[in-house]
Amino acid sequence: MSAESPEYAVGVDLGGTNLKVALVERRTGIVRQTSFETDADEGPEHVLDRIADGVDRVVHDESIEGVGIGAPGIVSMDRTTVSHPPNIPGWKTVYLPDQLGKRLRNSGLPLEAPIVAENDANVAGLGSAFYGAGRPFDSFVMVTLGTGVGGAIIVGKRLFRGTTGGAGELGHVSIDYEGPYSRAGVAGAIEAYLGQKHLSHHARHQLLSRDTTLHQTAGRDLTDVTPRRLHASAVAGDVAAQELLAWAGHKLGVLLGSVVNLLDIRKFVVGGGVSNAGDYILEPAREALKRSVMSSMSEGVEIVREEQGNDVALLGAARLVFETLEDDS
Amino acid sequence: MSAESPEYAVGVDLGGTNLKVALVERRTGIVRQTSFETDADEGPEHVLDRIADGVDRVVHDESIEGVGIGAPGIVSMDRTTVSHPPNIPGWKTVYLPDQLGKRLRNSGLPLEAPIVAENDANVAGLGSAFYGAGRPFDSFVMVTLGTGVGGAIIVGKRLFRGTTGGAGELGHVSIDYEGPYSRAGVAGAIEAYLGQKHLSHHARHQLLSRDTTLHQTAGRDLTDVTPRRLHASAVAGDVAAQELLAWAGHKLGVLLGSVVNLLDIRKFVVGGGVSNAGDYILEPAREALKRSVMSSMSEGVEIVREEQGNDVALLGAARLVFETLEDDS
Repeated sequence: MSAESPEYAVGVDLGGTNLKVALVERRTGIVRQTSFETDADEGPEHVLDRIADGVDRVVHDESIEGVGIGAPGIVSMDRTTVSHPPNIPGWKTVYLPDQLGKRLRNSGLPLEAPIVAENDANVAGLGSAFYGAGRPFDSFVMVTLGTGVGGAIIVGKRLFRGTTGGAGELGHVSIDYEGPYSRAGVAGAIEAYLGQKHLSHHARHQLLSRDTTLHQTAGRDLTDVTPRRLHASAVAGDVAAQELLAWAGHKLGVLLGSVVNLLDIRKFVVGGGVSNAGDYILEPAREALKRSVMSSMSEGVEIVREEQGNDVALLGAARLVFETLEDDS
Repeated sequence: MSAESPEYAVGVDLGGTNLKVALVERRTGIVRQTSFETDADEGPEHVLDRIADGVDRVVHDESIEGVGIGAPGIVSMDRTTVSHPPNIPGWKTVYLPDQLGKRLRNSGLPLEAPIVAENDANVAGLGSAFYGAGRPFDSFVMVTLGTGVGGAIIVGKRLFRGTTGGAGELGHVSIDYEGPYSRAGVAGAIEAYLGQKHLSHHARHQLLSRDTTLHQTAGRDLTDVTPRRLHASAVAGDVAAQELLAWAGHKLGVLLGSVVNLLDIRKFVVGGGVSNAGDYILEPAREALKRSVMSSMSEGVEIVREEQGNDVALLGAARLVFETLEDDS
């Protein structure tokens, strides 16, 4: 195929709530995309039908080279199975080439076309590396601040996957051996500070008796405090909200300092919903990072925000296909 | 060269106090070794002379393929320079192929033979991977508990080196963002608990008013408490000493749990002088590790002790030579 011909793949972002599907052109990025509710409660067969529907919707007369899926849960080392995604009840282990493949053959996908999956944070990292804020970096760590805290380690434009493909679980790295617990039961895991519910919890407790506009927007007892409301208050000049976000950013910076010292990877790309609070979190993170990095590795340390939002997940999922084909050829 | 012919390289372990040099045969390991005082105070030229003396001593009529050096300080990505090793005053940046090379040509080393260096903890990791407790593992993390706490990340039998070759500084990973400081100024860095001086400091403070035999062996004020004395007391049934070592082991386990979650590398080899305290540190570490690892990555998690002692550094230094020649061929 000449360098001029377009090359297409489909990227899928499988969330517990929303399912997004995009047609991606290798060089130019997303051509078109669609999104609908996952209806996870209706079970895995239904979810797989939905993915196939999505592929049908976004592919018109293009010829696609495969389908890549970013999924929560555990993905096998060969990227063909997704096991126990939280938020999709009844989904045990799904072998995608069969169970999704049979649905996609109807829409003309060639039998040998790869259908591959990768952990959702990992596809975001891959998308950022090729289409997002990670493009200038050969190696970097992607941090996704959302419901949970996810991560991806990119080394030489490839995912570092570890022994079984589980690498990158940044959210479950501890910054305090006596700290609060993450979902996975890890004391002082960064997710226990910056995960969406955890951040709200800390805000509720730390700001309850503070003078803050959040008492108006999030309820007198701050029952409805969210990262979004915290950010809105911070932007409006609310010192208490600013301080809480800075408190969280400090924790992030300490974590990233440890990552630099351990891996000598000095670039960080931060995405996910909570990252919308931007510099209210990232500036304190940069300050703490600077203090937590050994002087021999301080040069070039940098935190940037992913500006492409969740599109990087769709782009990275499609990138899985191109990468698989490159590796096979 | 046939599989039967012996292949030789020299490994050097350059410490601030002692300098060790060994002739290593690729398959069988150390043939002979020598050790003398580094006399670091006499400056870098003297130290380089000493290394050349050592090579002369251990090489008899064998033909060697190169010289590998494990050094404290910063090693360049191409492994040819060593900069600012702590404990060797006046050593700025030494370009080994020239400055050591000219000394070794006299002893018949071919002009093209590699003279390469690597960080001291990294050579220990490499030595363990090929000649020590790391042999069964494709990927593992080496932890050296000595004056400081060092580390090496082995992935697929190769060192993971990061952007500039600085990766593996496990001692400066934080387990408490408000904890005590390491030499590098990192709050709660594991070295600030388990580094030799730090461990003695914690023992002095935590055990001062405890009923312990250390008051006899380490002075009434515990001024002379050392990891070795702690271990001896623990072996003799001293509960206070046992508890202090368990306290330190717990910290190590938390750290290693974070490493598993981040890298999905599940095997650890622990070496260095402080590791002589063995299971008094490692059992509590195993317990804490188990609790700090996500359930999806708990299978096969293991901490083993390096039984080869400091020889792994000499073996790993020689391994650098064989690896360089393999990569070039």
